[in-house]
Amino acid sequence: MKVDYNRIAGKKIPRIEAISDGVFAVALTLLVLDIKIPAKLSVSTETELWSAFIILLPQLLTYFLSFMTLGIFWTGLTVQHSYIEKSDRDLNWICLFFLLFVSILPFTTAFLGAFVTFRIAICVYWFNILMLGSLLYVHWHYAYKHKFLNIEGDEARVVNKAVRNRIVIAQSLYAAGALLCFINTWLSIASIILVQLNYAFAFFSKRNR
Amino acid sequence: MKVDYNRIAGKKIPRIEAISDGVFAVALTLLVLDIKIPAKLSVSTETELWSAFIILLPQLLTYFLSFMTLGIFWTGLTVQHSYIEKSDRDLNWICLFFLLFVSILPFTTAFLGAFVTFRIAICVYWFNILMLGSLLYVHWHYAYKHKFLNIEGDEARVVNKAVRNRIVIAQSLYAAGALLCFINTWLSIASIILVQLNYAFAFFSKRNR
Amino acid sequence: MKVDYNRIAGKKIPRIEAISDGVFAVALTLLVLDIKIPAKLSVSTETELWSAFIILLPQLLTYFLSFMTLGIFWTGLTVQHSYIEKSDRDLNWICLFFLLFVSILPFTTAFLGAFVTFRIAICVYWFNILMLGSLLYVHWHYAYKHKFLNIEGDEARVVNKAVRNRIVIAQSLYAAGALLCFINTWLSIASIILVQLNYAFAFFSKRNR
Amino acid sequence: MKVDYNRIAGKKIPRIEAISDGVFAVALTLLVLDIKIPAKLSVSTETELWSAFIILLPQLLTYFLSFMTLGIFWTGLTVQHSYIEKSDRDLNWICLFFLLFVSILPFTTAFLGAFVTFRIAICVYWFNILMLGSLLYVHWHYAYKHKFLNIEGDEARVVNKAVRNRIVIAQSLYAAGALLCFINTWLSIASIILVQLNYAFAFFSKRNR
Repeated sequence: MKVDYNRIAGKKIPRIEAISDGVFAVALTLLVLDIKIPAKLSVSTETELWSAFIILLPQLLTYFLSFMTLGIFWTGLTVQHSYIEKSDRDLNWICLFFLLFVSILPFTTAFLGAFVTFRIAICVYWFNILMLGSLLYVHWHYAYKHKFLNIEGDEARVVNKAVRNRIVIAQSLYAAGALLCFINTWLSIASIILVQLNYAFAFFSKRNR
Repeated sequence: MKVDYNRIAGKKIPRIEAISDGVFAVALTLLVLDIKIPAKLSVSTETELWSAFIILLPQLLTYFLSFMTLGIFWTGLTVQHSYIEKSDRDLNWICLFFLLFVSILPFTTAFLGAFVTFRIAICVYWFNILMLGSLLYVHWHYAYKHKFLNIEGDEARVVNKAVRNRIVIAQSLYAAGALLCFINTWLSIASIILVQLNYAFAFFSKRNR
Repeated sequence: MKVDYNRIAGKKIPRIEAISDGVFAVALTLLVLDIKIPAKLSVSTETELWSAFIILLPQLLTYFLSFMTLGIFWTGLTVQHSYIEKSDRDLNWICLFFLLFVSILPFTTAFLGAFVTFRIAICVYWFNILMLGSLLYVHWHYAYKHKFLNIEGDEARVVNKAVRNRIVIAQSLYAAGALLCFINTWLSIASIILVQLNYAFAFFSKRNR
Repeated sequence: MKVDYNRIAGKKIPRIEAISDGVFAVALTLLVLDIKIPAKLSVSTETELWSAFIILLPQLLTYFLSFMTLGIFWTGLTVQHSYIEKSDRDLNWICLFFLLFVSILPFTTAFLGAFVTFRIAICVYWFNILMLGSLLYVHWHYAYKHKFLNIEGDEARVVNKAVRNRIVIAQSLYAAGALLCFINTWLSIASIILVQLNYAFAFFSKRNR
């Protein structure tokens, strides 16, 4: 009797959840390392410190933007995991590659923060979001196709549709926002932020349903 | 049949607990990165190293201060989670925004550490604490209102009151301490530290009850 | 009655799993800190930013390489843990020393990234991989020998063989790749990447089995 | 009916375990950030890179030293937690203050690494270890006194003795090692390393029991 190593790898869902939460937690917190406090020597009055703080605002905004991005995708991954009860090494690796683009987000965010008026910076940032969305889609698609879910029949079908639609619609909006950078980069960033605000704060509009 | 994505998002309490503990753990440890060891070249005797170490004391104090802040709010979040047995995407996002202000604390701490005699630095630090307290309050309020708790009746009512009072009283003390910065910044910081010492070390005074 | 401290230490598998996932999560995310964004001042046109981004590509490649390395060894450790139901202080420490070489990988990666044409850099990087493989092997060997597994008889024997073969074959390929550095360093790195791609993407070739 | 907030705080053991593992995982990995790779410009031959790598060896040794320190104390905390089934806010805070000295270890390690021939650096490092040991002792003492353990009678008594002896003996050896710094700092560091090697590698001498 012979056993293929690939048959026994990547099966433990709790471990995959643990490393996902860990990578997200570190990424969420590392984002702040890019915000440098002003140099002490150049500040001697309250007014000067206030000016120095104002200069940091764009960075704080980028920080806020990326925190929301990570929050949105963490929530997305969590939803999928709540329906996935089995795993294999392929699903394990799809999730790891998803995490690769999670852990690189602090870099693309800093890149965007430093070169906010450049189309290339927006494209790099958008490519990161695109890969996150695509891999999240593949993650779900693979689990659904291989019947790794803990739901069946009609329930599986409607949840399946809700999860897929969510990703496709969100990614279409992101892509549209990114395309706007060929008209104006600020307009492009504003659109991306609006899309994210919509997904993060949706509860404001739906609270009373 | 159609399912709203927002109905299926953010429901898994253990995941929210895991990412919270992760963000707190990273923030607690990142705080230390701001304490730079003295430059090697400028130190050649034990006395010089001692002087260089003494210069670090204010930073070690700020570090200690923020460690307590994080400890207090982590304990607060943990208490709430111990009573919350259900969640939805809104509660999930309230918790994520709470974590945003957790992960930005290393920045506001470094800002305060560098500009400890400036009112603006104290106000920024206090604003961070205020947001932590407010979001913690909203977190509990939302869970209580939507009956997500694992307790009922009288017990729910007294716990509810204890949790709310705790936050309101603590935040009033912090606000009072912060206001003192218009008289003297050191007095203001000393008051904030006293409030935190009280919440962290309460066990000294209550041990014998 | 006397109890040896070493008898009561290192027994809790969930804790060892938790710290392993934590160290891997931080290491996976720290890798990105080595990728510095270009200096703002030197960039004023899209073309210049594009050139500056291109210069980062080798670093992004090294990042990708190390992410895969960590993914491969995390998967390997997870597989072993899924079969190990008991532990003692020795197994605990073997795992901790394995984690030591996990947490040092961001350093050896940066070292390789900076001196990619130097044989010494490749040897240091390969030594890191060798230690990861060796300790993973010792980890399994110890658990198997002390009957800490949750499987028995034939199943234990075939899983045992699959786990050991996996490590020995992979390490032989890595060693062969590293040896190539005496001919050409780029050839050597390409071989190591190929080995890793094979272990990470195996699912592409086996999907249809 | 009124409930004291302090009565409902800090009760969830799994959360305390989670944040402990998180802080240890980050601290273990942050240690490596202090090891800077050599400057690219100053290296053009294999021999020069080898010299540059040799210069890093003291830092790699300090890294190894602190990894063992953290491993020893993490194992110690894990052992205690495996016997503790209840908690209150006081035990919670004792554990948090223990974690404070865990998260500051990367700093004291870097301090020792930079000023390895200075008595003050050794004293600061030793003070860190002393606080870790003391708080670990207090942690156990408090849990034992308040009957928070999951063991009773004779078993509790012998485990209690083993845990306490372990800490007292280890701390005596560390203190003796630190005192040697008044004769010679290298002798002092060598002694501390020997103590740690003994606690980490004890399994070599006890394997055949």
